[in-house]
Amino acid sequence: METELLDDIQLPRDLRQLRREQLPQVCRELREFIIRSLSTNPGHLASSLGVVELTVALHYVFDTPDDRIVWDVGHQAYGHKILTGRREQFATNRRLGGLKPFPHPDESEYDSFVCGHASNSISAALGMAVATDKRHIVAVIGDGAMSGGLAFEGLNNVSNTPNDLLIILNDNNMSIDRSVGGMTKYLVRMHTNSTYNRIRFRVASWLHEHGMMADDRRSGLIRLGNALKSAINRQQNIFEGLNIRYFGPFDGHNVEELVRVLGELKQMHGPKLLHLHTTKGKGYEPAERHATIWHAPGEFDPDTGERLQKDSEGQPPLMQDVFGHTLLEMAEADERIVGVTPAMPTGCSMNIMMEQIPSRVYDVGIAEGHAVTFSAGMAREGRIPFCNIYSSFAQRAYDNVIHDVALQRLPVILCLDRAGIVGEDGPTHHGAFDIAALRPVPHLTIAAPMNEHELRRMMFTAASRADGPWVIRYPRGKGHIADWRCTLETIPVGRGRKLHDGNQIAILTIGALGYVARSVIDEMPHLSIAHYDMRFVRPLDEEILREVAEMGCPIITMENGQRAGGFGSAVMEWMADHDYAPRIIRLGLPDSFIEHGDMASLHRIAGIDADALRNTIHSLL
Amino acid sequence: METELLDDIQLPRDLRQLRREQLPQVCRELREFIIRSLSTNPGHLASSLGVVELTVALHYVFDTPDDRIVWDVGHQAYGHKILTGRREQFATNRRLGGLKPFPHPDESEYDSFVCGHASNSISAALGMAVATDKRHIVAVIGDGAMSGGLAFEGLNNVSNTPNDLLIILNDNNMSIDRSVGGMTKYLVRMHTNSTYNRIRFRVASWLHEHGMMADDRRSGLIRLGNALKSAINRQQNIFEGLNIRYFGPFDGHNVEELVRVLGELKQMHGPKLLHLHTTKGKGYEPAERHATIWHAPGEFDPDTGERLQKDSEGQPPLMQDVFGHTLLEMAEADERIVGVTPAMPTGCSMNIMMEQIPSRVYDVGIAEGHAVTFSAGMAREGRIPFCNIYSSFAQRAYDNVIHDVALQRLPVILCLDRAGIVGEDGPTHHGAFDIAALRPVPHLTIAAPMNEHELRRMMFTAASRADGPWVIRYPRGKGHIADWRCTLETIPVGRGRKLHDGNQIAILTIGALGYVARSVIDEMPHLSIAHYDMRFVRPLDEEILREVAEMGCPIITMENGQRAGGFGSAVMEWMADHDYAPRIIRLGLPDSFIEHGDMASLHRIAGIDADALRNTIHSLL
Repeated sequence: METELLDDIQLPRDLRQLRREQLPQVCRELREFIIRSLSTNPGHLASSLGVVELTVALHYVFDTPDDRIVWDVGHQAYGHKILTGRREQFATNRRLGGLKPFPHPDESEYDSFVCGHASNSISAALGMAVATDKRHIVAVIGDGAMSGGLAFEGLNNVSNTPNDLLIILNDNNMSIDRSVGGMTKYLVRMHTNSTYNRIRFRVASWLHEHGMMADDRRSGLIRLGNALKSAINRQQNIFEGLNIRYFGPFDGHNVEELVRVLGELKQMHGPKLLHLHTTKGKGYEPAERHATIWHAPGEFDPDTGERLQKDSEGQPPLMQDVFGHTLLEMAEADERIVGVTPAMPTGCSMNIMMEQIPSRVYDVGIAEGHAVTFSAGMAREGRIPFCNIYSSFAQRAYDNVIHDVALQRLPVILCLDRAGIVGEDGPTHHGAFDIAALRPVPHLTIAAPMNEHELRRMMFTAASRADGPWVIRYPRGKGHIADWRCTLETIPVGRGRKLHDGNQIAILTIGALGYVARSVIDEMPHLSIAHYDMRFVRPLDEEILREVAEMGCPIITMENGQRAGGFGSAVMEWMADHDYAPRIIRLGLPDSFIEHGDMASLHRIAGIDADALRNTIHSLL
Repeated sequence: METELLDDIQLPRDLRQLRREQLPQVCRELREFIIRSLSTNPGHLASSLGVVELTVALHYVFDTPDDRIVWDVGHQAYGHKILTGRREQFATNRRLGGLKPFPHPDESEYDSFVCGHASNSISAALGMAVATDKRHIVAVIGDGAMSGGLAFEGLNNVSNTPNDLLIILNDNNMSIDRSVGGMTKYLVRMHTNSTYNRIRFRVASWLHEHGMMADDRRSGLIRLGNALKSAINRQQNIFEGLNIRYFGPFDGHNVEELVRVLGELKQMHGPKLLHLHTTKGKGYEPAERHATIWHAPGEFDPDTGERLQKDSEGQPPLMQDVFGHTLLEMAEADERIVGVTPAMPTGCSMNIMMEQIPSRVYDVGIAEGHAVTFSAGMAREGRIPFCNIYSSFAQRAYDNVIHDVALQRLPVILCLDRAGIVGEDGPTHHGAFDIAALRPVPHLTIAAPMNEHELRRMMFTAASRADGPWVIRYPRGKGHIADWRCTLETIPVGRGRKLHDGNQIAILTIGALGYVARSVIDEMPHLSIAHYDMRFVRPLDEEILREVAEMGCPIITMENGQRAGGFGSAVMEWMADHDYAPRIIRLGLPDSFIEHGDMASLHRIAGIDADALRNTIHSLL
């Protein structure tokens, strides 16, 4: 691998020593480095390849870390990490104890803001820009993230207060799957009409060079911008409509042009948006052709582009695939069923139904709040919407669940994929809060399947009843049953299952952690341990709770979610409300943000693994 | 009061019997009826007056309730209620057991969707519109609500799926205070450039009349729309940019023109937006002049426009005013302090600082998520932002608090006004969930002042430390101390206060409910009841908890928030984790949505009043 220039770049100041003509080679080397690294240490490939030139140009033009780059969604920031002192550690990226999966100020002074959830960059960067005029602030946002309401709220506020924010719209017409929505179509149309904007950019640059834009940032700029607009063309665009000066679209892969354009924009006062056209996966042909697959491809052979997939024959399926296939199966039998996903058809496997019944699946873009309220509207008209959102992203739809769904008892079935610890994506992506946050919301039924069969039964039960809102949460990754395609049948709502008899200790689990309890109990045949898979966080199975309470033995609860206010607390509340006072030990996520790493390690660190349960049992005897 | 036409309108079908020329009189009578009613039974006046003509025109043109009108924010829906079978009950509006404060499908088949929180109408109506072609769906949204991210997410998705949604943009350049943001400025500019749109509307109507738009709704429409656009003028607007056909602006107070325009739009296929210009408070001169004051004016003399304010001399102040004055006082002494409000400068009294130091107060419009993330960006640059959001609206910023603030331990001080039961605004506005939802979030300090002095001390402590995120929640309405302006001093974080000694029962309260405990204890001098104002939900005061646990007596917890997962549960969790097993009775909001009504009644219904505490104490003895 040729990395002679890259090898000498420890920090951006080294990059800034190079001549502009050397930058294309830096980009080639950086791209090659990313491809080689990710081939053995999996991560987000396609996004990072798409912004190689932009990353080099930004650090070349701006005086980082004094100037701040705010990345929107950290997927794309691998080049940024490699150029900012983390090249040698890059092999540890996403690994336990290694580099964090997404930029984080705790890791590097070059990381301006946490960016695990899309669409937050404009708001955060605007906050910085209005708070200081001592540094340049640049937000880099993808067209997919632009569909999020938070990004619009940011845009809508950009012109409220004087500031010099530069927003870079990295437009690749992809988020993870393809971008959707009116904005996306609008951006595509803008590509075809770039002459006007190029002229505007040149005129603005010329005016600047001649000292005509430097003085009064407050009003002169706006007047001049408007005059310019009138002079050249009466056309408006969305960003100009929001009082943000628009430049572009430019080719995001021409690093020398980028350096020139950024250099000029750096001098301009007032808020402005630079629209770049990039290709996700750029420079690696397999990734360019199939950007969705190569978003996070796992291990691969960098030379052939062959992905090294482990043989999954006879293995349990991914939980998301069980969801996806079951949804299709149910939708084929009941035409009221529809699917809603905020930009994650592949991630949640709703693409399975999308391929067969495209007219009944709605990919609404990165817009979790809308996904839920839109589902509520459909439910009002008699549809049965399965709205699938990753647990941590569903935090964005909290009010929508309360106000638009629960208050009206609408039969929206909210499926929270990636609930609990998610592994390498780390603290922004762990689905830690859903149980505690949703449990106090009246009218919700909250279920968590222990395995594939239970997931299918819960989905089927929710749709069969269609009498109110459900939440079904399940974890990332594989299930436990290779032969997962059981008969669809209903289960009684609010009823758990006794899986093991006993009277010395009772273990109450919710979700897949039931298998941890099962394995530990199997190790301890000499003890008499009862085990219940509770299935429902609400309503709780009061018969089981009463049975356990009457046994008078200690109770251990286990959940893959925050201990504070979670399932275990619900059990404690019930006991206290019914005048029982058993000893209750709650295993769940602690009062800290769990870092990134492999699942097994994180379960151990969080204290929800077999060791934690064993130790708890021993401490009780 | 002349209401001869109105008297004969029980339901919209009666309205539809009238001749179009009679509608102005209906509007006059309806307006008069609203003014007279609200003068004695306070409610939201100015918004409802602004949409009288629109309301009449909608029910005249559309076949309600088969067709659906989705109101965005129910403030404006009084006329709608009066025309849809609720005129005689209207005197009970917002009262305990009376008409609900906002439309709700449980109350009337004419109410399509719950609308207490702004910006949800487009998403909900779009869900209905794609789910059915058997009825017309109309969303009515104000320009203020249009600044919410959810509204944009809805707009961005309108063109994704074939549908006939009609969005009516009720543009009065006000939400409660004045609207802000780029979109608002944009709408103002559109008023000055209406010729083009009027021509387009006429051409489109003509084409429709001649059968040229009726057939293929899928593609023909878009092609025709684009052709039209090109033919008449190359100008685009934001809505057309999002593939939504735009018509307007029209005068929203010309009911006959509205009927004509709505009649024609009703026949047109495809999504479309009608832009109306209205005046908040229209037809009642005092309200037209001061729409913010007359948003919800309380009782008034309808003839003179004099507001009947109760004498508040010597009374405790509103908690919001204590916040507002204290913020100014602190900001004057520390220039790092800034204020952020999502469209509620008057509601949270941040207008006090805004008047004195306008450059350091940011009204970001109805955009709660942005408010928090923008605050986080400012905190990153060394500012100390006080971000004030009503508790129930802060549900919209849940992810922002977790992802953008807590994860980075940024010193954003989130002040949640209207926490707990709010009274007449009902279930959409009660701040019921914040404690339970935020308590599991690592790094947060969560405090609730018992009174004005404590609020001041908590604000001062949070800003003095500026070492991480705080949540300070306090209720709507008056405090308890007329002489509220105490010296600003810090309090120890995580330390409560013992207010009364005792050993038979211990009462732990959080927030203003401490006064309920105090009064009940005062009634019972024969009993030995300890009382602690805990001040902090997290961190909990472990010294107090240990002291109480060691006493071995029963514990009563009291909070103005959901029982499930709330403060009382935090106390239970601590006890269980520290091997104590006291009897704990938790008083808090039950597992249901509390309806609207006067505060005292709702506290009684919720079980957090003196009676509830008395009964609990008696049951324990």
